[in-house]
Amino acid sequence: MKTKTPSESKTVMTTMVLTNETNVYNNMFGGDLLSLMDRACAIAAQRHAEAPVVTASVNHVSFSLPIPAGSIVEVTAKVSKSFGSSMEVFADVWIDDPLNQIRTKTNEGIYTFVALDEDRKPKKVPELIPETEEEMLRHKGAQQRRELSLILSGRLNPSDAHELKKLLGKI
Amino acid sequence: MKTKTPSESKTVMTTMVLTNETNVYNNMFGGDLLSLMDRACAIAAQRHAEAPVVTASVNHVSFSLPIPAGSIVEVTAKVSKSFGSSMEVFADVWIDDPLNQIRTKTNEGIYTFVALDEDRKPKKVPELIPETEEEMLRHKGAQQRRELSLILSGRLNPSDAHELKKLLGKI
Amino acid sequence: MKTKTPSESKTVMTTMVLTNETNVYNNMFGGDLLSLMDRACAIAAQRHAEAPVVTASVNHVSFSLPIPAGSIVEVTAKVSKSFGSSMEVFADVWIDDPLNQIRTKTNEGIYTFVALDEDRKPKKVPELIPETEEEMLRHKGAQQRRELSLILSGRLNPSDAHELKKLLGKI
Amino acid sequence: MKTKTPSESKTVMTTMVLTNETNVYNNMFGGDLLSLMDRACAIAAQRHAEAPVVTASVNHVSFSLPIPAGSIVEVTAKVSKSFGSSMEVFADVWIDDPLNQIRTKTNEGIYTFVALDEDRKPKKVPELIPETEEEMLRHKGAQQRRELSLILSGRLNPSDAHELKKLLGKI
Amino acid sequence: MKTKTPSESKTVMTTMVLTNETNVYNNMFGGDLLSLMDRACAIAAQRHAEAPVVTASVNHVSFSLPIPAGSIVEVTAKVSKSFGSSMEVFADVWIDDPLNQIRTKTNEGIYTFVALDEDRKPKKVPELIPETEEEMLRHKGAQQRRELSLILSGRLNPSDAHELKKLLGKI
Amino acid sequence: MKTKTPSESKTVMTTMVLTNETNVYNNMFGGDLLSLMDRACAIAAQRHAEAPVVTASVNHVSFSLPIPAGSIVEVTAKVSKSFGSSMEVFADVWIDDPLNQIRTKTNEGIYTFVALDEDRKPKKVPELIPETEEEMLRHKGAQQRRELSLILSGRLNPSDAHELKKLLGKI
Repeated sequence: MKTKTPSESKTVMTTMVLTNETNVYNNMFGGDLLSLMDRACAIAAQRHAEAPVVTASVNHVSFSLPIPAGSIVEVTAKVSKSFGSSMEVFADVWIDDPLNQIRTKTNEGIYTFVALDEDRKPKKVPELIPETEEEMLRHKGAQQRRELSLILSGRLNPSDAHELKKLLGKI
Repeated sequence: MKTKTPSESKTVMTTMVLTNETNVYNNMFGGDLLSLMDRACAIAAQRHAEAPVVTASVNHVSFSLPIPAGSIVEVTAKVSKSFGSSMEVFADVWIDDPLNQIRTKTNEGIYTFVALDEDRKPKKVPELIPETEEEMLRHKGAQQRRELSLILSGRLNPSDAHELKKLLGKI
Repeated sequence: MKTKTPSESKTVMTTMVLTNETNVYNNMFGGDLLSLMDRACAIAAQRHAEAPVVTASVNHVSFSLPIPAGSIVEVTAKVSKSFGSSMEVFADVWIDDPLNQIRTKTNEGIYTFVALDEDRKPKKVPELIPETEEEMLRHKGAQQRRELSLILSGRLNPSDAHELKKLLGKI
Repeated sequence: MKTKTPSESKTVMTTMVLTNETNVYNNMFGGDLLSLMDRACAIAAQRHAEAPVVTASVNHVSFSLPIPAGSIVEVTAKVSKSFGSSMEVFADVWIDDPLNQIRTKTNEGIYTFVALDEDRKPKKVPELIPETEEEMLRHKGAQQRRELSLILSGRLNPSDAHELKKLLGKI
Repeated sequence: MKTKTPSESKTVMTTMVLTNETNVYNNMFGGDLLSLMDRACAIAAQRHAEAPVVTASVNHVSFSLPIPAGSIVEVTAKVSKSFGSSMEVFADVWIDDPLNQIRTKTNEGIYTFVALDEDRKPKKVPELIPETEEEMLRHKGAQQRRELSLILSGRLNPSDAHELKKLLGKI
Repeated sequence: MKTKTPSESKTVMTTMVLTNETNVYNNMFGGDLLSLMDRACAIAAQRHAEAPVVTASVNHVSFSLPIPAGSIVEVTAKVSKSFGSSMEVFADVWIDDPLNQIRTKTNEGIYTFVALDEDRKPKKVPELIPETEEEMLRHKGAQQRRELSLILSGRLNPSDAHELKKLLGKI
């Protein structure tokens, strides 16, 4: 099966934060940002899989900085690792402020998608070969995050989480 | 400071899945469900904190079963643990099918919120005292999930993740 | 045919008022609230009927207090009476203010739905047996409201409105 | 104070029914139509009052015919009677089918609005002088509907509902 | 084939500008107004063609005056000329301010639609016979605008643009 | 004043076509696409101007190919020429089909924006220096399109449209 690089799935979604997506502080709602990131990641996953995909899980999303109403937001999504028929995808979110020529990273999120064939059964996807240093780092951490996700959803016995154990120190 | 129970923050959000929230399979988009769960959890967190809240992170959301267009969806959110000014909140999602009298759990999500005072600084929230068996189980696991979240966002050294180490076996 | 209680159809819809649902006074538009109440009542009617339903009429909705943007709104809907294939449903609306621990009733609405079978013909629904004092009061008034609705839509001769005549004094 | 005719407040709102406004039968949701009618009536009331208005009550809305997705819908709203600072407004709804050159009335609704002055206190509005036969009929019935609305919201003793008693026959 | 007048296709769309349709100056976004005008023009074109239509091009839209949030906006669309199976449609936009009894034209737009038959092939539409002075002026200019549009999309050789040449002076 | 290249304003907006943005043929509404293109172009104009912008006019948009519901749409916007305080911006729209690895251009649009200073007065923007062949071609044609736009809005006498005359042949 062919291999693909993260840049082949790269998806850019630039948009503006509308007033009805903001909370009492006039900053973007967490939920609306989660939805935007999911949309960008789903497109990236389709581009890698060359097949329809469904969201399997959200592994982690942190919200570091608030995003004020009217901001130009740029979400960039790239597949970080493939596992058989599933793919881990990273979304990086920036506020782009053209008035002050400043670009600020506000948060990132990690989602997992599954590719489906015509019978809606899981379909094998190309292997991902990371290229940049950041892509390699994320590719390396993906196995640990996967074990965590399986433990949290009760599908992996913690004593079998080999990569995670390594992360937490020699055991 | 006073203590509160999970049922004091319980928030029920019943709604119907609209056509424009659905993907090519005619099932609810993951992103729209993430947003709905965030909204329900934010209300639960406000009820516990008696203060405005902002989303700090999504710790884990799994999508087990698809939710078809037109489904009646019921999201129930309750605070599972408080940590100083932050709160972990669980959202449980069911499809409620009144035609066939069937109620099916489709997925659950874990979010973290921070309460803010009038100067938008973190504000201490009441301690949470779990009551039911499920509430106690979730309260107990929250410390491990918190360590994971801190490791994933680079704010905790894995060797200091004491609860997590216990989970992964005697160390 | 089996009977059901109002609590079996009870539907809770908790949500937040978004900025684009508000008028020049920064309060929720009447129309958006009407739509929200209709949605909650339709779910309650489906739960009673165990069948799909369509809105037949809005009998009365009063707007007593404005609902400011950002409010947490809780709509509770319960069937108040069944008439063959149609059901009267009450929606009660509260603002829930967790910051000040205050819960204020803002308005109520009365809707009528018809249950449909697979051929989209009216389908008989279970008889409703009220339990609480409020449920009994609403159940009792439903016959008068039904006569009014039929008169207003030209389908009942006012001289045949027996319950209504009783309400307006001994005739 | 000056007087005005219904045609001076006439408001036409032509639109298309979008897919996400439709139920499982692919017809427009009752709630979305209620909201559309409220919007048209509020504009008509502003035009009559020359002042901002808020929805006071929905007196009656009947849903006679379903409105399929994609339909061109025309809502026409006109003030039917003024009472001090409040106005009764009728909305008539038609499906306009240009392909078959057919225009079908699907339903009508009756709303009440209150005009507000700069201090958000009720503000007197011009007296309405009906012109056409239909306008006169609606103007005449408004007093009865007003009594009903006041009885239903507990603000009028049924024995004082003089117009309503006339409607129900000599008492 | 029968002929029709512009007033037979006249479509009025009255609405209110919502907060989430506004930019940082609290005025309506250009894009939302473009979409509203397209909707009104498409309905006018259907009324003229008595057939479904699709947007073929936007020929020109100017934005002269900003439209503040909360404004009552009235869009009026009428077919200005028919060309075989295509129609040019004008949309005129006014702010209607009932509080100050002022009506201000903010901008106008020119769209082209194509009528389709049951096989989704272009379908001939009735010839348009203008009546008012403005309708005649717009009808006359349509040929020039059509040539421009064809040149801009590379489908007409500039030297064949006879009407346009006339406009630009004796050649 | 500094100069800038088109690539410095390049804005990519990748999204999916939702069901409620589609017409009876299940293809994207022209109006929704116009709005999407306006949003992308406005961001590109802000990036070039380093200032807030408002839409001044739409000069031309052609719709060549329909965009089916569910399509991944990619809009790319770049400034094509600056004129004092105004900028012409091109939006190119593609359907990106990752399942069949096909990328199809569906249409393009030309918008004009004006940059504003803090007093909402027109603000001078950097001169645009085109780099690629396509950028140079678009830069060259912009003067002709500007003359057309001024003629269509009645602000230029056709006999003064020098560039346009050149386009239409030796005069």
